[in-house]
Amino acid sequence: MFNYKITPLENGLENVQGFYCDAVNVGMRPDTEQGDVAFIRSEVPCNISAVFTSNTFQAAPIRHYQRYGKDFQTDFVLINAKNANAMTGEKGIEDIDTIISTLHQKLSVTNPVMSSTGVIGYRLPIDKICSAFDILDFSAKNSHKAARAIMTTDSFKKELAYCVELSDGSHFNIAAICKGAGMINPAMATMLCFIATDADIPKSDMDTLLHAGTEQSFNRISVDGDTSTNDTAMLLANGQSTAYNKEAFSAVLNQLMFELAMMILKDGEGANKLVAFEVKGAKNEEEARKASSALSNSLLVKTALFGEDPNWGRIASTIGASGVACDDTRLTIHYDDLLIYSDTFRELDKEREEQAYHIMKQEQFTVTCDLGMGEGAYTSYGCDLSYEYVKINAEYRT
Amino acid sequence: MFNYKITPLENGLENVQGFYCDAVNVGMRPDTEQGDVAFIRSEVPCNISAVFTSNTFQAAPIRHYQRYGKDFQTDFVLINAKNANAMTGEKGIEDIDTIISTLHQKLSVTNPVMSSTGVIGYRLPIDKICSAFDILDFSAKNSHKAARAIMTTDSFKKELAYCVELSDGSHFNIAAICKGAGMINPAMATMLCFIATDADIPKSDMDTLLHAGTEQSFNRISVDGDTSTNDTAMLLANGQSTAYNKEAFSAVLNQLMFELAMMILKDGEGANKLVAFEVKGAKNEEEARKASSALSNSLLVKTALFGEDPNWGRIASTIGASGVACDDTRLTIHYDDLLIYSDTFRELDKEREEQAYHIMKQEQFTVTCDLGMGEGAYTSYGCDLSYEYVKINAEYRT
Repeated sequence: MFNYKITPLENGLENVQGFYCDAVNVGMRPDTEQGDVAFIRSEVPCNISAVFTSNTFQAAPIRHYQRYGKDFQTDFVLINAKNANAMTGEKGIEDIDTIISTLHQKLSVTNPVMSSTGVIGYRLPIDKICSAFDILDFSAKNSHKAARAIMTTDSFKKELAYCVELSDGSHFNIAAICKGAGMINPAMATMLCFIATDADIPKSDMDTLLHAGTEQSFNRISVDGDTSTNDTAMLLANGQSTAYNKEAFSAVLNQLMFELAMMILKDGEGANKLVAFEVKGAKNEEEARKASSALSNSLLVKTALFGEDPNWGRIASTIGASGVACDDTRLTIHYDDLLIYSDTFRELDKEREEQAYHIMKQEQFTVTCDLGMGEGAYTSYGCDLSYEYVKINAEYRT
Repeated sequence: MFNYKITPLENGLENVQGFYCDAVNVGMRPDTEQGDVAFIRSEVPCNISAVFTSNTFQAAPIRHYQRYGKDFQTDFVLINAKNANAMTGEKGIEDIDTIISTLHQKLSVTNPVMSSTGVIGYRLPIDKICSAFDILDFSAKNSHKAARAIMTTDSFKKELAYCVELSDGSHFNIAAICKGAGMINPAMATMLCFIATDADIPKSDMDTLLHAGTEQSFNRISVDGDTSTNDTAMLLANGQSTAYNKEAFSAVLNQLMFELAMMILKDGEGANKLVAFEVKGAKNEEEARKASSALSNSLLVKTALFGEDPNWGRIASTIGASGVACDDTRLTIHYDDLLIYSDTFRELDKEREEQAYHIMKQEQFTVTCDLGMGEGAYTSYGCDLSYEYVKINAEYRT
């Protein structure tokens, strides 16, 4: 076991050597206190890895990114809110080229990358976005501003930073800004996550560890079961610290991504509760995933959570409807440590109902379903569905 | 082409020769004006066909029904509300046997069948249910009362009846009572539907036509994407009219079931709008079904319908996320007859947005997505998601 120490840091991206970031408001967002165009820049070209949405209609910035080919380096990421540049066709990609040409006239950059979030189906306001290049401070370290600028219906900004000390006395830093809220779903719905590190990590480790981290974090959360056109998790590494250890990096990356995923879920539109749906004893892991994600996506389960109804009927019914191998004589259901259903204990008595009710009143708890069919296990994370969700999504145009 | 004439009739089951029905309140439902136990009886044994939920945890009455074997006849269906008799294990089936034994002491019946809807996970109140046998009028023709007694969160009773005149001058009748609301989903969620006919229909036609009718009606509607433990569509035929023609019967059955499905959808919990999601040009019918049902189940699409937001972005994004073969340069989207998206017409101008808005203000309209990939077509039907849905499901214990 390699020794390392992970220490949380104040603030975000400014902790990482050689990285700069800032944001400004160019008039796409009415509230001028909050930016709508942000950047992340490294003083030397970075290796980059990214995981993108599984939506067939990937937005223009994702398609533009993929044109750079496999192992390109970059030193600049430009991010805008309020317009997703999605379903804009070849014109949407040309618009990015136009923006990048303008950027090249202002600043020496290598293979700049773009990322967008907002309304689908409208061309980017190129002039507005390019006007940012005259006012952005490319030597600033304003992580807060960047984190706030990329928000859509998020109610709070999401940023995290860690320092990792290795046993040889060297250390590296890692930090991220992230946005979520609404449309968060297994298979990475509308979320953007930008992770920067000064660790000297090889490109092949970046790809492997970013995918593994995504599978343990963003792919396990669900707000509403939809998957957007723009989801992106990106890892930038500039090697400035010269320190690296794979085990330590994997640990801190997983921790960082999991914490961000939980922040997204807590900020799910109108959500008040965070619930872990642990399915075990499934025939295999794939079946466990299927049942667990059916639970975290079920409207009836979500409204029962909001209503704090201890009845386990909707949980059982959702498992039965999920199509996985199950048997009501083998199934057990727990809320935290409280057994609320088993073959020999089917009817909920008043006392246990009262105990279950107290568990459900918490802001966080675990629903564990043991199917008793095999060894497959999977946990996904969901939130309740409140009046507020409907209000936000009826009134907000995505 | 065989000639026949389909005429709608007033009221419901009382139109069908040899059928009787009634309902009483035995104290399971607080509102004593509304029954909670109902029956449908035929004076001679009927052939019976049924389609049941795809939920693995089928409720006790469904498992009891299946113990009768393949081609049994029955003359009595007993239905209760407020308790689903689901997840009650072998005891739940024994409880039905106990109820049937008591019924046999009061009335001469052949293979009585039971059907239940309500809360999951509680044993039936046997004494209360059996107390109904002392007060029900087994010679009554109270279709209204029966239709009201089987309701759960339904806001109106659902019954329909038709007379079919054949070209040889003979005629038969068909009628149904039905309940829905909440949990209505492709693959038949919490809904009960009892269809009675005096047509002289062979058993093999009953099975074929009931399955075909279900596929064209109840399997195409979605309120919230959940599938319950108790869904049942049942067809009873006593042959009393001696009239029958397969083509005519198929037509009237499809019409009756489709109308009932639309009644269920209009009564979806908190729903205000009924939307047909027509997907065509898919690679094949299965892909069309997949995309269409993704649309009718999407929370973001449902809230956009409620918010009357004409932006087609959520429609496109949902199709892209559904996993079917599609291409944004081939896709077109219409609201009724209004083109709102195509490759050459991506951005919604003010005038068209205004037209789209007027279409969306209607209580019913059609969203048509042509994928341009092949010949597959499928239409499913959905409703909007309102504050009211969340309120009903947070407060109602299923």
